[in-house]
Amino acid sequence: MVGALRDAVGPESCLDRPEELLVYECDGLTSHSARPTAVVFPRDREQVISVVRTCREHGVPFVPRGAGTGLSGGALASEGAVVIECSRMNRILRIDPEDRCAVVEPGVVNAEVSKAAAPHGLFYAPDPSSQLACTIGGNVAENSGGPHTLKYGTTTDHVLALELVLPDASCIELGSATGWGTGYDLVGLAVGSEGTLGVVTAATVRLEPIPESVETLLAIFPDLVRACRSVGGIIEAGLVPAALEIVDRRTIAAVEASVYAAGLPRDAGAVLIVELDGPRESLPPQTERVVAIARREGATGVEVARDEAERQRFWRARKGAFGAMGRLAPDLYVHDAVIPRGRLPEVIEKICAIGDRHGLVLSNVFHAGDGNLHPNISFDRRDPDEMRRVLAAGAEILELCVSVGGVITGEHGIGSEKRDFMHLLFDEADLDAMRRVRAAFDPDGVCNPGKLLPTPRFCAEANPKARGYDRVPFA
Amino acid sequence: MVGALRDAVGPESCLDRPEELLVYECDGLTSHSARPTAVVFPRDREQVISVVRTCREHGVPFVPRGAGTGLSGGALASEGAVVIECSRMNRILRIDPEDRCAVVEPGVVNAEVSKAAAPHGLFYAPDPSSQLACTIGGNVAENSGGPHTLKYGTTTDHVLALELVLPDASCIELGSATGWGTGYDLVGLAVGSEGTLGVVTAATVRLEPIPESVETLLAIFPDLVRACRSVGGIIEAGLVPAALEIVDRRTIAAVEASVYAAGLPRDAGAVLIVELDGPRESLPPQTERVVAIARREGATGVEVARDEAERQRFWRARKGAFGAMGRLAPDLYVHDAVIPRGRLPEVIEKICAIGDRHGLVLSNVFHAGDGNLHPNISFDRRDPDEMRRVLAAGAEILELCVSVGGVITGEHGIGSEKRDFMHLLFDEADLDAMRRVRAAFDPDGVCNPGKLLPTPRFCAEANPKARGYDRVPFA
Repeated sequence: MVGALRDAVGPESCLDRPEELLVYECDGLTSHSARPTAVVFPRDREQVISVVRTCREHGVPFVPRGAGTGLSGGALASEGAVVIECSRMNRILRIDPEDRCAVVEPGVVNAEVSKAAAPHGLFYAPDPSSQLACTIGGNVAENSGGPHTLKYGTTTDHVLALELVLPDASCIELGSATGWGTGYDLVGLAVGSEGTLGVVTAATVRLEPIPESVETLLAIFPDLVRACRSVGGIIEAGLVPAALEIVDRRTIAAVEASVYAAGLPRDAGAVLIVELDGPRESLPPQTERVVAIARREGATGVEVARDEAERQRFWRARKGAFGAMGRLAPDLYVHDAVIPRGRLPEVIEKICAIGDRHGLVLSNVFHAGDGNLHPNISFDRRDPDEMRRVLAAGAEILELCVSVGGVITGEHGIGSEKRDFMHLLFDEADLDAMRRVRAAFDPDGVCNPGKLLPTPRFCAEANPKARGYDRVPFA
Repeated sequence: MVGALRDAVGPESCLDRPEELLVYECDGLTSHSARPTAVVFPRDREQVISVVRTCREHGVPFVPRGAGTGLSGGALASEGAVVIECSRMNRILRIDPEDRCAVVEPGVVNAEVSKAAAPHGLFYAPDPSSQLACTIGGNVAENSGGPHTLKYGTTTDHVLALELVLPDASCIELGSATGWGTGYDLVGLAVGSEGTLGVVTAATVRLEPIPESVETLLAIFPDLVRACRSVGGIIEAGLVPAALEIVDRRTIAAVEASVYAAGLPRDAGAVLIVELDGPRESLPPQTERVVAIARREGATGVEVARDEAERQRFWRARKGAFGAMGRLAPDLYVHDAVIPRGRLPEVIEKICAIGDRHGLVLSNVFHAGDGNLHPNISFDRRDPDEMRRVLAAGAEILELCVSVGGVITGEHGIGSEKRDFMHLLFDEADLDAMRRVRAAFDPDGVCNPGKLLPTPRFCAEANPKARGYDRVPFA
């Protein structure tokens, strides 16, 4: 098996010694791990095809992987899978300023696309927090979001076409560079499919004009609920900011004690970062309105960034948050769920209460404008009782979010982490439709097994509709 | 069979006499027709389920239908299908201003959604030209666009969740009202699937804030190519207008001779309508830039609408176009294809040459900003030689568009009309993936048969990749 893989990609591009495999045993979800049979580094589509063919001949599953920054265990090598590590397929094949698109290989780092597009006045909008490391292939797999999702949408809104090597080692093209689909929207289906339908070997992505002007505000609130109410006020006013991010008290304290210190008042209950972008003349009146809404909702201070340095300082409070959390405990469980924006004040209070009830250190940093929550639990996994409480609190948070009409992931995916929570949202008929679609691409279940869909046994235990959850309030 | 259908929906909601069926023999593509076995008008999901169950018991296929305004024969009752006419499922179930969404039944007329949302300062963005008649269910089936697609996207960008009755008469829910998908994006798959995966019985759609201000410009050009070049100039300048529409000389003449007369100079080669929307202060500088670009590209005049009445006058030149075409000939073939925007000037000249070469009256009204062309051929179907030339010119136009990296439909769908042109874009492996996805929902091929996908026989004749077409230029 490994010999054939070496033949496929070259001996220098195939790892199989235990010490080499160690780093590929997990992705950003460090609580889950599984050892791959081997890790291969193909350099082009033909090598990917050879690897898939070899895996099939030997009856071994495979899993595509990018930078391994995913937080739901989507790149976990379940069932001894071969990891197809795409980081060496990292060429930007084309930038087309006229049609505002770029053609890239899956291993291209997210931030590199915007860098290459910048001389043309264009950028690639989806900006996950890991954008200096994560790859376009991984973003496609997980349908990654980011702080600017509110205005610009997630990855699925920016992928025009894909080249996909299927589990039978054939290669198909989905979509078109014009962005206009013909027939079934298989691009949309492939984005967010977590590598379960095949291996993406190239992507055509949409580029956007760099906004003429950007204005960044930082509003300081005595508590989290008032910050959440401001978000509702801004949306109800018909404004469409590029970003609306909230950082809570515990996170501020951690950031201010860290190298990311942004000069925030440590006694603040929460800060709200508002970013507006667009034509220069459109920003001052919008800025005024945001300031007025924040003050009306009880902000004790609102600052408008005077220059790029100050803008970066405001963002440090947000972007440094996960790094700073390391100060609180050895481990951090980054949760991810979405609720209807209107329920923010109420749900965020209940989430804090869940953390308190379990005696956990829970903090919140989140894409408030999207209703995309990131309750983070700081813990020490060496303490089995604490670990148990972390998992119990996590399950309660997901159930709470679903009970108000939300969903169990915004941008991190289902992966290995949340597959057994799919039954909170979907009944057996819904899940069967997904299983059949998956089987249309991967009838033998060899492509990233163990991800996204629950085992039928588990989800048969529960029927969300019987529970009265209101995911799609049609009736 | 008809007795059982009557039981399912009530005798007053089931038609089967030949004179009653006549009007359901075709949709907006009048060149194709097929007589249904019966037409039923269900009033709710349960009646749809009963109808589907009855059809399955009797081995008769079925096809969902909205207002029948589709232009690709997507609602054609092929193989004696039962037409499930959803126009009586026309309730707006909920408007949710806080989360900016509406829940509607499939028979709700497009324009009614915006009307119901207006008191909340919201609107439903996709605006097909038929929006006073066409339904949300039909829009979902065909992934309808419209003049404002350039800024706001097509239907797929505005559907958050769907309720779908499958061909086995089970009912599933896709997506979530938050707009955040979990698991495979089956909403995206269902939108544009032309009623081949099941019958949509409810949709949750996104609402947008009504823009604070709108500015509409009309630029007059001596020829079509200069108008196209202005479009390129506006896009390259980084502007994102709400609409960029071109109307050519022949269409202007027809409009000016009709009740839609908008006072356009009859000797103009083309007019370009530019609509800008957004915060009030942002529009004057953008308007100035558009005027400057149009003049630079050779506009002989640029008018800015002074009031709503003038704005409506400008739009009459566009919206009255299809009605006015009736003056030129008894029949009109409305084509629909998309090309990379950068190729507009060159392709539009070639399309005119194709019309001339076949001795046809060809005019152009199109969503220039999207590269979404509508070459329209005026003809008399009673003249068999002319009919033959219309079809030959249509095929040449599609081949031309594909040869420059375009696709064969923008917003009208594949339907019955273009299924045998799918081989221009897709090879057998690509089409097989689509066939397997279809079979995952409809293994027996009973749900809107004869649409979207070509018969294997036909498409096996050609391989687009061997032909060197560059749909997804990856390599």
